[in-house]
Amino acid sequence: MVLAYDGAIQRLIDSFASLPGIGPKGAQRIAFYLLQAPDVESQRLVDAISEVKAKVKFCEICGNVCESSPCAICSDPRRDHTTICVVEEPKDVMSIENTREYRGLYQVLGGAINPMANIGPSDLNIAQLLNRLKDGQVKEVIVALNPNIEGEATTTYLSRLLTPLDIKVTRLASGLPVGGDLEYADEITLSRALEGRREV
Amino acid sequence: MVLAYDGAIQRLIDSFASLPGIGPKGAQRIAFYLLQAPDVESQRLVDAISEVKAKVKFCEICGNVCESSPCAICSDPRRDHTTICVVEEPKDVMSIENTREYRGLYQVLGGAINPMANIGPSDLNIAQLLNRLKDGQVKEVIVALNPNIEGEATTTYLSRLLTPLDIKVTRLASGLPVGGDLEYADEITLSRALEGRREV
Repeated sequence: MVLAYDGAIQRLIDSFASLPGIGPKGAQRIAFYLLQAPDVESQRLVDAISEVKAKVKFCEICGNVCESSPCAICSDPRRDHTTICVVEEPKDVMSIENTREYRGLYQVLGGAINPMANIGPSDLNIAQLLNRLKDGQVKEVIVALNPNIEGEATTTYLSRLLTPLDIKVTRLASGLPVGGDLEYADEITLSRALEGRREV
Repeated sequence: MVLAYDGAIQRLIDSFASLPGIGPKGAQRIAFYLLQAPDVESQRLVDAISEVKAKVKFCEICGNVCESSPCAICSDPRRDHTTICVVEEPKDVMSIENTREYRGLYQVLGGAINPMANIGPSDLNIAQLLNRLKDGQVKEVIVALNPNIEGEATTTYLSRLLTPLDIKVTRLASGLPVGGDLEYADEITLSRALEGRREV
């Protein structure tokens, strides 16, 4: 067992080490950084955490994060209200917005089906999505989940659920990442790229 | 330019990204983690930061972090008060304590001489160290600074300063790290190991 610091410092190190992506050494470094930083800097972090917890909520329509519900995207009349892009997490909305190619709406599922972690369809915002499709305004649902086992399973589940509703269900293309190298592409990605080949 | 989030979330991401060792993606991950975490968890982090800033100070004798000055080490009569180990940062004290080999006192310099960053001897707790050597109680000063250019320069500076005071000045051994591999040792480390060879 290694020795621990005096109470307050150790509690700060432990708090940081419990965050995703921060190990014990990184947590120690941050703790000492904050200790020596001006009070205004540590206060800014404290305020930012408290503010997010107090102000940020989830949009009642799409499940994205927002400060007033419905969110800015759902309540924007200039967006295309006939298309919904289904993503796993709020940060995925930002990834797609950053392409500046998409002008429709979103539905944040809050994860993907994962039997190993006990996450089933009822734990996701799927009922919310189905509810939005009822009035027949939506013509296309773009399923944009992560290209891993959980995302694939959820995509299959959604496509079975939505196809009978006479709505076009599409998914993101699989293939070689732009700037990538054929040599380093894994077999599955490469076979998907072959399968999805297009005329030039 | 990529799009930014709504006010509060972006401020939290920026606050985390300004900490050492956390990049923009990691900051985003932590922000969404905290957003979805129970209030008690984010409150624990907020409290830990505020507590450290309010309670933790620097020991008036050795410069180490502590909740009451003098620190637990300086005020412990069972420690060897004739030896002072000089380190750069408070976290180095913990590294040496964890060896359980050292029973003397410490002096935290608060850094090392670094002309490139405009850190000279007067920016370090060197006057504090000299003050502690005045009463003649201390027989040995162990200089345990980082084995890089700044640490070397500071070690040389300290040894010139302390040798006339008739105090034994020692430094940590340089050589191969235990569990390391001769093949991967750099030339400087290997020549230091040769230079410092010992009879078996």
